[in-house]
Amino acid sequence: METTEEGISDWRKKIDALDEQLVQLINQRAGAALAIGALKHQGQLPVYEPKREQAVFEHVRRVNQGPLPDHEIQHIFERIMDVMRSLQRRDQ
Amino acid sequence: METTEEGISDWRKKIDALDEQLVQLINQRAGAALAIGALKHQGQLPVYEPKREQAVFEHVRRVNQGPLPDHEIQHIFERIMDVMRSLQRRDQ
Repeated sequence: METTEEGISDWRKKIDALDEQLVQLINQRAGAALAIGALKHQGQLPVYEPKREQAVFEHVRRVNQGPLPDHEIQHIFERIMDVMRSLQRRDQ
Repeated sequence: METTEEGISDWRKKIDALDEQLVQLINQRAGAALAIGALKHQGQLPVYEPKREQAVFEHVRRVNQGPLPDHEIQHIFERIMDVMRSLQRRDQ
């Protein structure tokens, strides 16, 4: 029978694999944000667009099927959006 | 030729698709965190383990290939870990 420690260790291996996928997807998202930043810069459009940020939050809440509640999903995406915005600014 | 607005709109569709994958993976991670939380509760182990959190940050920095710098990846995972910890606490 598996001990508590072995059980935790097995779940952590699964988490590590998920984290590797998350890092990749977040970086793909950052690449897309940089492309948008370049287009905005070229078109002299503002980096910060509150309406788009709201649309992103509504979208992730809508597709969320848990176990995380919608507000916690949004909480994570608020940080993601902060990071993307600072990346776009730094790239100008 | 594509206008700036069309270009931005295309990238946003790609971002929306990435966000749907991110929501799914984050929830899979939450499911694993809940399983660990239950094992910890059963074994009377503490929810907060600073060493494990440090190992998660080191891992995501190590596998990061950009364009996001390591500290921004960690910044996002700090929020993810906050959310996971509050989920584990709420589940007791």
